[in-house]
Amino acid sequence: MVEIRKPISVDDAVQLVMEHRIVGEKETIPFVDCDDRRLAEPLIATHHVPSFDKSPYDGFAIRSVDTKSASKNNPVEFTVVEHIGAGQVPEVALSKQQATRIMTGAKIPDGADCVIMFENCQMYERDGKNFMSIEQSVSSGQNIIKEGSEVQKGTSLVERGTLINPGVKALLATFGYDQVVVSKKPVVGILATGTELLEVDEPLEEGKIRNSNAYMIASQVKRAGGDFKYYGQLADEKHSSYELIKKALEEVDFLITTGGVSVGDYDLMPEIYEMLQANILFNKIGMRPGSVTTVALLKDTFLFGLSGNPSACYVGFELFVRPIMQYYMFSQKPFLQRTTATLAEDFPKENPFTRFVRCYTTFENGKLFVHLAGKDKSNVVSSLAHTTCFMELRGGTGGCKAGSTVEVLLLNSENGQANFRE
Amino acid sequence: MVEIRKPISVDDAVQLVMEHRIVGEKETIPFVDCDDRRLAEPLIATHHVPSFDKSPYDGFAIRSVDTKSASKNNPVEFTVVEHIGAGQVPEVALSKQQATRIMTGAKIPDGADCVIMFENCQMYERDGKNFMSIEQSVSSGQNIIKEGSEVQKGTSLVERGTLINPGVKALLATFGYDQVVVSKKPVVGILATGTELLEVDEPLEEGKIRNSNAYMIASQVKRAGGDFKYYGQLADEKHSSYELIKKALEEVDFLITTGGVSVGDYDLMPEIYEMLQANILFNKIGMRPGSVTTVALLKDTFLFGLSGNPSACYVGFELFVRPIMQYYMFSQKPFLQRTTATLAEDFPKENPFTRFVRCYTTFENGKLFVHLAGKDKSNVVSSLAHTTCFMELRGGTGGCKAGSTVEVLLLNSENGQANFRE
Repeated sequence: MVEIRKPISVDDAVQLVMEHRIVGEKETIPFVDCDDRRLAEPLIATHHVPSFDKSPYDGFAIRSVDTKSASKNNPVEFTVVEHIGAGQVPEVALSKQQATRIMTGAKIPDGADCVIMFENCQMYERDGKNFMSIEQSVSSGQNIIKEGSEVQKGTSLVERGTLINPGVKALLATFGYDQVVVSKKPVVGILATGTELLEVDEPLEEGKIRNSNAYMIASQVKRAGGDFKYYGQLADEKHSSYELIKKALEEVDFLITTGGVSVGDYDLMPEIYEMLQANILFNKIGMRPGSVTTVALLKDTFLFGLSGNPSACYVGFELFVRPIMQYYMFSQKPFLQRTTATLAEDFPKENPFTRFVRCYTTFENGKLFVHLAGKDKSNVVSSLAHTTCFMELRGGTGGCKAGSTVEVLLLNSENGQANFRE
Repeated sequence: MVEIRKPISVDDAVQLVMEHRIVGEKETIPFVDCDDRRLAEPLIATHHVPSFDKSPYDGFAIRSVDTKSASKNNPVEFTVVEHIGAGQVPEVALSKQQATRIMTGAKIPDGADCVIMFENCQMYERDGKNFMSIEQSVSSGQNIIKEGSEVQKGTSLVERGTLINPGVKALLATFGYDQVVVSKKPVVGILATGTELLEVDEPLEEGKIRNSNAYMIASQVKRAGGDFKYYGQLADEKHSSYELIKKALEEVDFLITTGGVSVGDYDLMPEIYEMLQANILFNKIGMRPGSVTTVALLKDTFLFGLSGNPSACYVGFELFVRPIMQYYMFSQKPFLQRTTATLAEDFPKENPFTRFVRCYTTFENGKLFVHLAGKDKSNVVSSLAHTTCFMELRGGTGGCKAGSTVEVLLLNSENGQANFRE
């Protein structure tokens, strides 16, 4: 009666999914809308930086050759012939013993080859004219930021697939990218199954619970950089459910269902996979939570059948859907960042299967510590609210004592990594 | 001629700003729009979880008293009187030797006080009726998740000021919060100064650079959870600039200007502060970059005068504006998370003043390492793109060798901290 499924390992499951990954399209969007999108092309410097020789200080631009004899006992005098601020173009080319009063960021006038700061000058007026004198020699090139010294035109500054953060945005502005080529956001369809589900605005009924998974997944989709389309809850009837799923699969880039993938008497999804003639990559994984996580393909479209258990649903998304979305958006590091950490408290459970424990991290003296997000029974429901990482305990291991070194997968890192395990 | 300003310490500057902090208002928004907002009230459980006794497995709900004599040699038989899935309400109260076939998550029928899993039962039909038998006794309460055992009604699950992440969203759904009380997003006005500035879509001109700071700050405002309003660039004329700033101050919760705060010949802001009769908290800080960062108040409204230097502007925002915004949005940990890390490479510069170096972090064996985001000259412009933290080197310290322990402020952590230094 009860179907026996053969579990595969987490690593095999991740690999199977990634073997069918696809890259999405590019699109060109206005600069002002590009925050948190991913670059679809490397960011190339369109000009030198600076694009002209400029002054790093407020001071005077002069010819170094005129300062050769300057000393404490032999001040050298310059006539101030021009006064320019940043953005102004100097009009006077300097001749012998002439100086241009110049502000930070302004262009060095022709003839000048160095800048001397105000604090090293004497400034005075005589007969309505401005002069300055110095008591030291200055070498050629001093206090001049040379054209191209910071960045050479054509340099690739940020790689394809990088998230556009405030620093990247500044670079795009600097180089005049008023249109930005980014990866298209994948549209992820979400469908909930389960006749026990009430909507968020419905009063609680006997024997029922509110649908939280669909909205949690919608948030995870957004956090991963995608857009979602919520198709509501599947009716408890296979033909209309089949039709809805078929329609959804045509409208989205990826489809996620929550619940109904187990072998219970009312679990709809196994039969629907058959009706769809979907290519089931796996329907059982040797992991906790989420052993019934199912991934199938209909032509090229992924159908992620996540568990109806909230923690399993959450973990299944981050392990399988998130990397596929990141890859789709050109990320070169689509997997969650993995590192080791010190377990801050005992975790006495045995791990017959690989376990992903919802945790959060802290730092102590530069060391990463990992804490259980839902240690007590009373935290079962709220643990996901405090989760910022998963602790991965390999199958076949025993309980873990506080102080042990464990592996963690970080959910909020701007960095990812190229492989599931590095 | 050149105004001499008296620098204050970074700590004093942070404290002065925080002394004038204000808390924003609450607003009620639809549940579906609440991602990445901050809770303005603690999240309270509106009912027990579970809200009824439920089964954690697929199996049979029975009366433990009927199993007392069951053993390998004495199987006990039960008549299956009902079949319920999750969401269905059992209608039959169990009598002696009766069982209800029950699915995971379904409500326990009256009379039953335990559940036995399928794998521990024999199931069979006789005369068109369903039976099952067991060969072991079961204790009362076994395999039943009791009403309220996970969360008691009235429990505060997530504190006020917490960011609504996917896990918090799941909790809001569970407890039927179809309207969510969140903190209002502050509206941050942005004004750029500098006649050298071109807009992003303008071709490069001699002596000019494109405005990158305003857009970088707009991204930082969004990353910090606020909305921005860009007022464009100030004209190089003090009266119209004064009028625009005065108008902006009336329309926004906080105002940021970039550039023009130094003592250069063309720096407009000092005079405008005077015209506004603004209360200047400070206009010089003993820090690098950003020593000219100015913070003023007009009545209760902050006017942040950030430096025109991109790195100084970026650092100034994160050190002074970000915490004020977080506090406004009810965050109880408004400051950047601080920890120590191991410096991955030499930083030979002396630190006459406290220095905030743009860096990124990596992990190695559970230890946090910090790397310079812009080590080479060629990276000056691009360093902010790769910045995920600041390394803080206290004033009066010498160069740092690779392997030293240094302090870092993390920009991308979901956690903050209650104080600038803890």
